[in-house]
Amino acid sequence: MAKASHTRGTYNFSAGPAVLPEEVLREAQEALWDLDATGIGVLEHSHRGGAIDSVFAETEASCRRLAGIPDDYRVLFLQGGASLQFAMLPANFLADDGCADYLETGSWSKKAISEARHYGDVHVAASSADANFTYIPRAADIVYSERPSYVHVTSNNTIFGTQWSAEPPLPDGAWLACDASSDIFSRPLDMRRYGIVYAGAQKNLGPAGVTLVILREDLLERAVRELPTLLGYGIHAKNDSRYNTPPVFGIFVMGRVFQWLERQGGLEAMAQANEAKARLVYDAIDASPFFRGTAREDSRSLMNLTFRAPSEALEATFVADARKAGLDGLKGHRSVGGMRASLYNAFPDEGCEALVSFMREFESRHG
Amino acid sequence: MAKASHTRGTYNFSAGPAVLPEEVLREAQEALWDLDATGIGVLEHSHRGGAIDSVFAETEASCRRLAGIPDDYRVLFLQGGASLQFAMLPANFLADDGCADYLETGSWSKKAISEARHYGDVHVAASSADANFTYIPRAADIVYSERPSYVHVTSNNTIFGTQWSAEPPLPDGAWLACDASSDIFSRPLDMRRYGIVYAGAQKNLGPAGVTLVILREDLLERAVRELPTLLGYGIHAKNDSRYNTPPVFGIFVMGRVFQWLERQGGLEAMAQANEAKARLVYDAIDASPFFRGTAREDSRSLMNLTFRAPSEALEATFVADARKAGLDGLKGHRSVGGMRASLYNAFPDEGCEALVSFMREFESRHG
Repeated sequence: MAKASHTRGTYNFSAGPAVLPEEVLREAQEALWDLDATGIGVLEHSHRGGAIDSVFAETEASCRRLAGIPDDYRVLFLQGGASLQFAMLPANFLADDGCADYLETGSWSKKAISEARHYGDVHVAASSADANFTYIPRAADIVYSERPSYVHVTSNNTIFGTQWSAEPPLPDGAWLACDASSDIFSRPLDMRRYGIVYAGAQKNLGPAGVTLVILREDLLERAVRELPTLLGYGIHAKNDSRYNTPPVFGIFVMGRVFQWLERQGGLEAMAQANEAKARLVYDAIDASPFFRGTAREDSRSLMNLTFRAPSEALEATFVADARKAGLDGLKGHRSVGGMRASLYNAFPDEGCEALVSFMREFESRHG
Repeated sequence: MAKASHTRGTYNFSAGPAVLPEEVLREAQEALWDLDATGIGVLEHSHRGGAIDSVFAETEASCRRLAGIPDDYRVLFLQGGASLQFAMLPANFLADDGCADYLETGSWSKKAISEARHYGDVHVAASSADANFTYIPRAADIVYSERPSYVHVTSNNTIFGTQWSAEPPLPDGAWLACDASSDIFSRPLDMRRYGIVYAGAQKNLGPAGVTLVILREDLLERAVRELPTLLGYGIHAKNDSRYNTPPVFGIFVMGRVFQWLERQGGLEAMAQANEAKARLVYDAIDASPFFRGTAREDSRSLMNLTFRAPSEALEATFVADARKAGLDGLKGHRSVGGMRASLYNAFPDEGCEALVSFMREFESRHG
C-alpha cells in the first residue's frame, strides 16, 4: 500500500498549502540548482527551450497515465488558482441568457456561484446551507433547471470536512464541472463523467501558483463570448499552456508528484491509503465521548477531518499543545471552529497515529 | 560595485525566465525542506500562518527599502504575469467611453494595446513600428490625446533590444503605467513619476508565476467597472495579496532577490554594474566589422543586447558553437533574428567577458 515517508520533525496537518512528498522536495532542491545536468536551474531556463519542453511533456504524460485521461481531453497548467477558474468557467461557457446549475456545499461553492452570476443565471440545484454545510445533499434532493449550460460541483469541502463519495447524477445532455482542489488524485477519477475538472495545486498536487485544468476538447469550440485573452481556455489549449510565461516551477513539482503517485501504486492505492489514514482518526473521534465530528457520517471527507472538543477553551489548548508536540496546523477554519486534520496524499501514516495518541492523551488529561 | 557570483559551468543568457543569484538559489533549496527551522518547507506552509506572514512582510519591506517606494503606494504580489496586467490595467482604469494613450515600442506594447481595446479607446501616442521597433520615440514625437485615462509605456523591449533611458514626458494630470518586466530594479526607480509599475518576476526578480505590482493607493478608488473578483486591484490590495492562495514560493524567492540586491549596494550599484556589463559587449559589437547591433545606438537596452552576424547561416553556427562553449540562450527572437545576450542583474561579469572572447574568436575563424 502507498506510504509517504517522513523524516522531518513536524507533522503538517495544514489544509493547504500542504505537506508534499519528501522525495519530491529533494528532487526540487536539486533542480533549483541544475535541471537535468544542463548547468541551469529549473527557475532559470527559457520556458520555450528544450529542457522545459521535457518538463511539460513528462508532467502531462505522467498525469495522463496516472488518471487515465482520455485522448479527447486536454491537460492545461494555468495560473490564478481555483478562484480564477470560478470566473473562467462561466466566462467561457455561461451565456448572458443561459443558466448554470450549482451544487452548494460550502464556502468555495458559494464563491464559484457568486462569480458565475457576473455572467449569467445561476440555479442552485441543491444546497446544504440549511445545516451549515455539514452534509452532502442526497441525489434525490437535487432539482435541476431545464437544460443547464453545465452542472458545477465542489467534490470536497476543505472547510466543512465533507466530500461527495461519487459524482452527482446529471440531467440529460448536461456536463459536469468540478472543483477538485482538495481531493484530486486522492482516489481514481473517471474523467468521462466530467467536462472539466480543475484544481489549485497546493493541496494534493504541488505548490501554490499553478492550477491543473483537465477539459474535454470539444468544449473549446463552445465558448460563448469574447474575453480578455488570458481568460479564454482556447488560447491556453492552442498554445499548450505556454501562451504567456507559465509557472514553470509549479509544473515541474506537480510532474514529480505525479511520478511519485505512480510509484506509490497509482490512484487505487492512494484511495486505500487515504481511507486507512482517515479511518484511524475518525475511529478515534467516534470512540471518544470527548471529541465529536462536525460532518454528518455519510458525508465525511477523507481529506479534511473536522472535529470539536467540549469547549472553545479546550480546543485552543488542544491546538497549541499539539503544535508543541510537533503536530502543526490543526486549527479548524473559523466558520466551523474546533480542529481540522488534513490528510492529503503526502501525509504520512505515522502522523495519523501520532494524532490519535495525542488525542487520547489530551482526553485523559482534560476529559 | 555589485558583482554576481558564478560557480556553475554554464553562462545563461536567456531572455526570461533568466539567471538568478546563486546565493538565492541556495537559500531557496534550504527553504524547500525547512523554512526558518519550522520543520515545514516553504511550499507546505499555510499561506495564512505566521511563517508566511514573515515571508510577505520581509519581501515587501525589502522591496520598499530597495526602491524607495513611498508610503502612499501599495506593493502587490499577483499571478498571471504582465500578460494579465495588460488586461487588468484597462479593466480597472479605462472606461467604455475613455481613451488611454500607449507608447508602442514592440511586441509587448502591441499586446498591451490589444487588450486595452477590449475595454475602451486606445490612442497610440508614438510608435516605432515604422522601423521594426529598432528605436525609442523622441519626446518631441509623442502626440497625446486630450485627457488620456493614463499613459502606458514598456520601459524595456526584450525582443527588440531597446530601452527608454528616462520616463516619457506626460500631459498635465495624466499618470504613467509601466510594464517594467524586463528592466525593473536594474536601475533606480522614481516611483513618484508613476501611477503603476508592474513586472512579471521571471527576468530580474525571481521565478515565473509571480507578478510585482506597485501602485499609487488613490488609484484604487478610481476603478471604472465591476469585474470578476480576481481582476480588480482593490480586492488584492484590501487583502494584502492574500484574497486567494498566493504564489508563495515566487514571493519568497523574490524577497531573497530583493535582499541580495540590497547587499549588492542597491539600485544605484546595480545600474553601474549593468552599464559596465553592457558596455563591454556593445564595445565589442561596435569595434567589429563582422557584428552589428540591431537597435539604434541612442535606444539600446542595457538588459537585452541584440546583434547580427553577416549571414543567417553564420548566426546559427554562432549560437550552436556558443552553446557548446557554455554560453547558453544566445539565439535572438525570430522577429529580429540573429543573437540576443540578456544581461540581467544576476548575470555575472565573467559571462560578458566570456561572450566577448567568444565573439572575437568566432570572428577570426569566420570573418
